[in-house]
Amino acid sequence: MRDVEVVGLAMTRFGKQMDRSLKHLAGEVATGALADAGLAADALDAAYVANALGGSITAQEMVAGQVVLRSAGIDGIPVFNVENACASASSALHLGWHAVNSGAHDLVLCVGVEKMSHPDKGVSLAAIGRAADVEEVFGPGGPRPGSRSYFMDLYAELARESLESGRATREDFAAVAVKNRHHGSLNPLAQFGVEMTVEEVLSAREIVWPLTLPMCSPISDGAAAVVLAAAERPRTTDHPRVRVAASVLTSGVSFPAAGDPSSSAIAAARAYEAAGIGPGDLHHVELHDAAASAELSIYESIGLAAPGEGGALVRSGATRLGGRIPVNTSGGLLSKGHPIGATGLAQVYEAVTQLRGHAGARQVEGARWSLTHNAGGWIEGDNAAVAVHVFEGGVA
Amino acid sequence: MRDVEVVGLAMTRFGKQMDRSLKHLAGEVATGALADAGLAADALDAAYVANALGGSITAQEMVAGQVVLRSAGIDGIPVFNVENACASASSALHLGWHAVNSGAHDLVLCVGVEKMSHPDKGVSLAAIGRAADVEEVFGPGGPRPGSRSYFMDLYAELARESLESGRATREDFAAVAVKNRHHGSLNPLAQFGVEMTVEEVLSAREIVWPLTLPMCSPISDGAAAVVLAAAERPRTTDHPRVRVAASVLTSGVSFPAAGDPSSSAIAAARAYEAAGIGPGDLHHVELHDAAASAELSIYESIGLAAPGEGGALVRSGATRLGGRIPVNTSGGLLSKGHPIGATGLAQVYEAVTQLRGHAGARQVEGARWSLTHNAGGWIEGDNAAVAVHVFEGGVA
Repeated sequence: MRDVEVVGLAMTRFGKQMDRSLKHLAGEVATGALADAGLAADALDAAYVANALGGSITAQEMVAGQVVLRSAGIDGIPVFNVENACASASSALHLGWHAVNSGAHDLVLCVGVEKMSHPDKGVSLAAIGRAADVEEVFGPGGPRPGSRSYFMDLYAELARESLESGRATREDFAAVAVKNRHHGSLNPLAQFGVEMTVEEVLSAREIVWPLTLPMCSPISDGAAAVVLAAAERPRTTDHPRVRVAASVLTSGVSFPAAGDPSSSAIAAARAYEAAGIGPGDLHHVELHDAAASAELSIYESIGLAAPGEGGALVRSGATRLGGRIPVNTSGGLLSKGHPIGATGLAQVYEAVTQLRGHAGARQVEGARWSLTHNAGGWIEGDNAAVAVHVFEGGVA
Repeated sequence: MRDVEVVGLAMTRFGKQMDRSLKHLAGEVATGALADAGLAADALDAAYVANALGGSITAQEMVAGQVVLRSAGIDGIPVFNVENACASASSALHLGWHAVNSGAHDLVLCVGVEKMSHPDKGVSLAAIGRAADVEEVFGPGGPRPGSRSYFMDLYAELARESLESGRATREDFAAVAVKNRHHGSLNPLAQFGVEMTVEEVLSAREIVWPLTLPMCSPISDGAAAVVLAAAERPRTTDHPRVRVAASVLTSGVSFPAAGDPSSSAIAAARAYEAAGIGPGDLHHVELHDAAASAELSIYESIGLAAPGEGGALVRSGATRLGGRIPVNTSGGLLSKGHPIGATGLAQVYEAVTQLRGHAGARQVEGARWSLTHNAGGWIEGDNAAVAVHVFEGGVA
């Protein structure tokens, strides 16, 4: 087993981009990540391509990876189409990391791409519901166009539990949205660049009580990609080095008992062990804020806050830029956008950009350790998939 | 890198099974493969689950692996949803093999499952077309329900080229169908158990000239699974040992020039090199006979016949049970059926059954080396993905 480094990265702007195809989005980041790595397409040994909603939105249900990569001049190599709902891109990253870590390959490309916007918004909302057990939740045929957003109903239910148990307030949820809007305003690739106040978030259109629109991640189109290389491979750029210190994927268990660790907690614990650090050593985190309320519970799952203290952590300002442990400096899913098959690699784009010291107005000074947390799907009380990665910069 | 063995396997009957769900089909083989391996679900380190048409047929577009495995009592482990069109299951196998081969895992489950039958057959036919570049081939929105079968049009075009160049005759295509029907009649899990004559095949309903119905693989539902283990792991059954001698995946190149090797030829050459054998050493082959005409050209690609000699090989009887190198003893895709996300592992089911000496009436006597060839999707003149595996039985 050997060290793996992120040597190239690229990301499109996130947002509604009805005029751009999967090929156009993925082509931009495949070409961009190779250029950032100072490499040509024929240097690649394999590619791992994440896409979740191709069948629902664009009809490219199969071999999307080969289709988009050929349009970028990449062919003749093993291509794996990987899907784990909103954790698709980090699952692709995990497979690519493993291939290099094990010595099977020296240089691989990981791409995440998603088109979610559809002329009929009901099609987009219904499609997202397909990340659950469709037979059990919706019955034969699955979610219907025009049905409500299953996942926002779910997040709202979890948010109500937080409110009722006194673990958090609606103002805490709003504080997460305000923070991530602020961060997004500093990220030129983010879907939403305008700041909001707590009052504006609370009085915005209600999606499902207690969640308002800015507390919910939007429908987005976009792509992100990284090139991974064996650390022992000769360098092709002068970028500051960033290594993958841990790559962990797991799935939830059926009907977890109260008090059982969530798949997020399990994945984070394994990642800390693999990286040889603890949550107190981190300088930066990107986590899966599909809803503002989720950010607070993930603080607790990954050890940034003690159980029940997630609300207090955001109120303290510690997770805002300039605070002790800035979280979702990219704007997170809430502000940067959440094209589901691309999100995991967009988190890595932000982590590596921070560790390279290239984050500009949103730079976390002295960032050396960064963690990304990406969750996908929901079955029987837990996520279907959770991936946690740890990255180390400042590698000599 | 260490030896990997197939220690458990299971397969459902293939055929139209409108009353069975993805969970039902996959649950049967996940449970069956574990039982065949003498193992409990909690022994598994990871699972690789192939499904291609979930989004089109059942609406389970995402996290199908977690959904079907939880229903079989398997949870809390990394699950990867893998898709490469008709080569999905062998792509999942390749990833599982690599995880054990590299030492990352000791014991993994690979599952392929597909529901293709739909109350509206036009939905099934249109869905299969999504294994091409849908934007380029069909335009926005992709193939429409009720459209013709894109892949049978494609296979027919390639078959016409064979006829026009004099490399094969329609009788040769019929001979493949007759052989595979004969083999299928000996396989209780096959979709079609009734033998046909050359005359019956030639006079059957035309699908696209020169292909008639029995020359085309059918719409099928089914599942197959294997358990892979590190060879050094203590044995849990008395099954004859079967090791994975080679596992190769590749993709085609854009617009290959005449005379360039196909992705099938490239993958086979790499597999022979990895296994340290040549085509003359094989005792049994399962290959991707999605159309009868394709079987002949794959004979040539994988080195069973010289270029242009595929027709002569089937006419010689060498590829029939009892011949020099029996091909598709399971009945192949033509007779056994072709639930596309399951096919690659169903080929492995047959290969390992042969190498264990458990194939009953269709046993190839003394079989020690078997090769499986699985191809998926079509873009710009070649398959989007091709996987070739070589298995060795009789391992002490």
